[in-house]
Amino acid sequence: MRAQARTQSSIAVTGGNVAGGGSWVLVNASPDILSQLRANPDLQPGRQVRDSALVAIILVDAQVDHTTGLYMLREAVRPWPIWCTDRTQADLTRGNPILSVLSHYCGVEHHRIDFGSAAFAVDAVPGVRFRALPVAGKPAPYSPSRDSPISGDNIALLIEDAQSGRTALYAPGLGAIDDQLWDAMQSAACVMVDGTFWTDDEMIRLGVSRKYARDIGHLPQTGTGGMLEWLGRLPSATRKILIHINNTNPILNESSAEATEVGRRGVEIAWDGMEIEL
Amino acid sequence: MRAQARTQSSIAVTGGNVAGGGSWVLVNASPDILSQLRANPDLQPGRQVRDSALVAIILVDAQVDHTTGLYMLREAVRPWPIWCTDRTQADLTRGNPILSVLSHYCGVEHHRIDFGSAAFAVDAVPGVRFRALPVAGKPAPYSPSRDSPISGDNIALLIEDAQSGRTALYAPGLGAIDDQLWDAMQSAACVMVDGTFWTDDEMIRLGVSRKYARDIGHLPQTGTGGMLEWLGRLPSATRKILIHINNTNPILNESSAEATEVGRRGVEIAWDGMEIEL
Repeated sequence: MRAQARTQSSIAVTGGNVAGGGSWVLVNASPDILSQLRANPDLQPGRQVRDSALVAIILVDAQVDHTTGLYMLREAVRPWPIWCTDRTQADLTRGNPILSVLSHYCGVEHHRIDFGSAAFAVDAVPGVRFRALPVAGKPAPYSPSRDSPISGDNIALLIEDAQSGRTALYAPGLGAIDDQLWDAMQSAACVMVDGTFWTDDEMIRLGVSRKYARDIGHLPQTGTGGMLEWLGRLPSATRKILIHINNTNPILNESSAEATEVGRRGVEIAWDGMEIEL
Repeated sequence: MRAQARTQSSIAVTGGNVAGGGSWVLVNASPDILSQLRANPDLQPGRQVRDSALVAIILVDAQVDHTTGLYMLREAVRPWPIWCTDRTQADLTRGNPILSVLSHYCGVEHHRIDFGSAAFAVDAVPGVRFRALPVAGKPAPYSPSRDSPISGDNIALLIEDAQSGRTALYAPGLGAIDDQLWDAMQSAACVMVDGTFWTDDEMIRLGVSRKYARDIGHLPQTGTGGMLEWLGRLPSATRKILIHINNTNPILNESSAEATEVGRRGVEIAWDGMEIEL
């Protein structure tokens, strides 16, 4: 077995000159954010004490693995501009009120993400536009709508280079692919999509949970209508990357038949420090 | 400057045969718990999927830097036995309700820490006894008693080898030293004490906060009645270790005059992976 350790799913986006110490938007704040900052000097230019190159945060949902890093960012010198839907904001001020906890430290400047409206931009990161697409999924276990998801509980993020118009789609949690999302996937130059589980029953077979992938809002890679089938229908020029890979997924073992199969299909398996240029 | 990176303050305690893969009590769950587990193979024997050698958790307060690691331990296969005072339990079910969040994952088996009563033991870790001492300090910023601390908001933990009777005192947050605590320090074989700040005004001078060390419940090392003065009065055989060192503290720079001064006084500066045998 050959498997490299991976920290938990999140990305940082910039439109500026990376080498020049540009400003970055963090999309999801994983529990591993401190190691991730240390491993990426671009994100920690060290211009002053407690400085980072992160200037805003976008959350795609209220899950623990996408929000716990906010605690580690609490000592920022100014309130964090945080973009999320009303649904996510509700869960993060009630069931798991991280945003309320932050008010005792750096504070939060909340920006609401709406659907259907124009794309939004983040002030200090010019040249990039974001658009949210609602996706089928599951809100966090502490959400009152856990068992009957509501639009806005989970989003996919379409990230556009304003100059070229090229887009990347970021969707770490994705229970199904509807027409709107499929349109976005087809027109994207790069799709980073839910790579959580290889099979629907993976956690059950390993005895770590009694839940199926689809029960918790994740489309497995294999089986009828699985992620690999969808990705196979995209243009061959589209960069296809599996992200948010659970530690039960056999593709993490680089010498596995499953990882080989993914590679054969022209699909990449994300790794820490991966850089994507649009 | 020569400074090694340190993860955030927490310790693990065992009474058994360490090499044999014994069971450990985690005292405080730092945001760096995942790196700490990875760096200490004794804590991750890997006997089964999602296994660790941790069998229980003791929290000395409800602060973010002592509790955020609980999120990363949420996929445990059984409810975590968590020992804390009623004050800490209240803050962790209200202002920052991590314990309530955990109820949606592995669950929590709460054990109450009382003062004045007999020492307590943790079932799966024989040979070790714990006793809590109330200490002057500050509860977390999200505590309703932030500005008027109540006994139980912060504790020091006296850890006793049941066979030899030798003790270690663990007190990462300590605003003052009262008679009861001083007695415990004098009779301990090892004291691990609040090493957060070198001077009372350290954060103000560096411009990272408007607060004095004493404002937030930490006794600085220097100045009249400072920690080094207290430690200097302990028997020379007592092992004296500064822990919970803030990233503004000059002793983190091993070539600093301050670090040299600490060494000259026979006081150690904690580092990741330090092992203490009683």
